[in-house]
Amino acid sequence: MKKLEVCFTPDLLTYYPPEGKVVVVIDIFRATTTMVTALANGIKDITPVATLEECKALQNKGYLAAAEREGKMPEGFDLGNSPLSHKEQDFSGRQLAMTTSNGTLAITKSKTADQIVIGAFINISAVIKHLQNQSQDILLLCAGWKGRVNMEDSLFAGAVAYRLAKEVTIANDAAVMAMHLYQTHQADMEGFLKDGLHYHRLQRLGRAQDIEFCLKEDVYDLLPIYQQGILIAKA
Amino acid sequence: MKKLEVCFTPDLLTYYPPEGKVVVVIDIFRATTTMVTALANGIKDITPVATLEECKALQNKGYLAAAEREGKMPEGFDLGNSPLSHKEQDFSGRQLAMTTSNGTLAITKSKTADQIVIGAFINISAVIKHLQNQSQDILLLCAGWKGRVNMEDSLFAGAVAYRLAKEVTIANDAAVMAMHLYQTHQADMEGFLKDGLHYHRLQRLGRAQDIEFCLKEDVYDLLPIYQQGILIAKA
Repeated sequence: MKKLEVCFTPDLLTYYPPEGKVVVVIDIFRATTTMVTALANGIKDITPVATLEECKALQNKGYLAAAEREGKMPEGFDLGNSPLSHKEQDFSGRQLAMTTSNGTLAITKSKTADQIVIGAFINISAVIKHLQNQSQDILLLCAGWKGRVNMEDSLFAGAVAYRLAKEVTIANDAAVMAMHLYQTHQADMEGFLKDGLHYHRLQRLGRAQDIEFCLKEDVYDLLPIYQQGILIAKA
Repeated sequence: MKKLEVCFTPDLLTYYPPEGKVVVVIDIFRATTTMVTALANGIKDITPVATLEECKALQNKGYLAAAEREGKMPEGFDLGNSPLSHKEQDFSGRQLAMTTSNGTLAITKSKTADQIVIGAFINISAVIKHLQNQSQDILLLCAGWKGRVNMEDSLFAGAVAYRLAKEVTIANDAAVMAMHLYQTHQADMEGFLKDGLHYHRLQRLGRAQDIEFCLKEDVYDLLPIYQQGILIAKA
């Protein structure tokens, strides 16, 4: 059986080399939720970049530019990191450049993987189906928050592990912990997450609607896949 | 209220500077359990060292020398890392030098703390009582396994957070996660831990009795405290 491991933050990636694996990058609040939503609502492709400067440079070339630092949009960009902004306006056919505090960094750090895909609750079944059809070992990489472990990414990793538990070997303690957390709290994820720091941060910033959307399951049957530096919807 | 944070592995300690805090070092299987047992059974003091060479050097000066690598005792030492070895023989009055894969390293890495104490299920109430009587913020530092997160140390951190929850601010997501895991699995900790890698490792090595002992609560009313490079029983 193929192995499934969970890495709670990119800072621990050194123990889980991505080589030869399918890496699922997870940043529930909100980068990976936004990526799925953007592609589902007509964005042609997404270029994740590490810095604000790279994002600006692509904006100057005609890209739609989304940026987030400390939960907010720095000045001079077109969008922040709210998934809902892609539902409220029509950006069909545009190319999106995107930089966020955690999610885009997690992608950059796992570039040596055999394959990188993007996971969120809103496309969880598409993630599961894809993983079931691949033979490689699986690494669920939580983007975390500035290197720290967070609850929402761990919870999603647990949801994936829980759904695949009969078909894979759950291969590290973090995966077992995440799976148990999901198993216990699946019926009231928001109740569980309300003690989390990022939940509070988003509430303070007036993003309660984002939170609600980020916790919906299977809004889209779409899987973003990373190919030659860009994210596209898997055919 | 004072803050309580959990750090799942010493590799993430950079996000939780020990300065000004009481750090509880946690290595349930088995270093911190063994330290408590050793002091409770007459060892005068314990010198935790990072390398086998340092441990040997102290052995040559007359110390009792305990060493563990990969769960086993390397050749030429007096003891491995089993807490039970301190109950089976009388080492009263001896000084113990000790090096283990994870636990002693966690102590070394938190040396800038205001205070370092040693926690295990076998002395959990002594840990709680001590933390209640201190005004500093609290950092529960899981030794983990070679940098990785492990279930048993996280579970103990959760037990401490759970017991102190009304008197402290639970200040990071790892603490909330650990607390929930303990809350859900406190009635059958061994049932929960049997999916953990370290549990399997110890079972394979024939250390089932160690596991059982390591999960007993309040065998000793004793708190090891780190002072000037050695661990002694707190007066």
